[in-house]
Amino acid sequence: MKLLKDKIMSEGIVLNDSILKVDSFLNHQIDPELMMAVGKEFAARFADEKIDKVFTIESSGIACALTTALCLHVPVVFARKQKSELMSSEAYTTKVYSFTKKVTSDVSVLKKFLHEGETVLIVDDFLANGEAALGLADIAHQAGCKVAGIGIVIEKSFQPGHQRLVDAGYHLESLARIKAFKDGKVVFEED
Amino acid sequence: MKLLKDKIMSEGIVLNDSILKVDSFLNHQIDPELMMAVGKEFAARFADEKIDKVFTIESSGIACALTTALCLHVPVVFARKQKSELMSSEAYTTKVYSFTKKVTSDVSVLKKFLHEGETVLIVDDFLANGEAALGLADIAHQAGCKVAGIGIVIEKSFQPGHQRLVDAGYHLESLARIKAFKDGKVVFEED
Repeated sequence: MKLLKDKIMSEGIVLNDSILKVDSFLNHQIDPELMMAVGKEFAARFADEKIDKVFTIESSGIACALTTALCLHVPVVFARKQKSELMSSEAYTTKVYSFTKKVTSDVSVLKKFLHEGETVLIVDDFLANGEAALGLADIAHQAGCKVAGIGIVIEKSFQPGHQRLVDAGYHLESLARIKAFKDGKVVFEED
Repeated sequence: MKLLKDKIMSEGIVLNDSILKVDSFLNHQIDPELMMAVGKEFAARFADEKIDKVFTIESSGIACALTTALCLHVPVVFARKQKSELMSSEAYTTKVYSFTKKVTSDVSVLKKFLHEGETVLIVDDFLANGEAALGLADIAHQAGCKVAGIGIVIEKSFQPGHQRLVDAGYHLESLARIKAFKDGKVVFEED
């Protein structure tokens, strides 16, 4: 997706050999028009599937999930990383390890928002080790949902996530695939 | 806002005399079309202001802030409730107490995303005690930003937040104002 790659080239900051900061448009400040373009692109790439819900995880997945859901005319459900007193015991839960934050979080969704037989599209901002996406897929399967596919805004293809999701049989669509960081610059995979 | 009030009446669940669950369309599952309508309404209510950024707090504020920013053609900045290793010391920070979760969180925004002289519109999903909105306003003032106003999706008018924000001189616009919960039902303020 050229618009996204151009934005990564102009505003992304390569911090070290594994971390790319894109907080000026994706996960701290958000560019709403870019998010709409991302949502349209996900909707187009999964147009062959009959999707009932877009499924993501707080916080950085919410923006791209919302625009995707707008284009697909379906609701978003976002998994929560911590229990609030408003969350009852009636939840599907899984564990997700964050390599960035070096913590394992309980990730939960109330059972009433995912129903057996529904088809969900999993959407998230980043794919590195695949922990979040696999956690969301685990919750979807607990609920008896079909996973139509996994849409990722930015994938670091040199980390294990891509292969783990493909090996698990998921239809994966990443809008920008990064092969490496070289001399402080982003090198994309060929389309 | 009639569409929102109708949704609250049909899907909101009054848990006790102070807690309303609206997690089927606002803060766990999200209704994207309703969020677009909310964004349009905020943009209309603050149309007289020249707004540079929409400013909110993760996670539940992100959806309504994004649609507002789409309508205003400006970026969203969302404050983070916990420090990740991607957040440097170059941040504005304030403390926000959550009566729901009974914890005080450090809320932070990287300084590079709020600039002196900019005008921000603060948007959030709920107003109860006003802690989150006042925390965001505090950060905006630390950055030398003007606060154009505060847009709230659902206000519990019987709790102190409304009066605290009005007393502090802010232009407050709440799309649904709840006067009381009576016999398990929502009673709205008169428009």
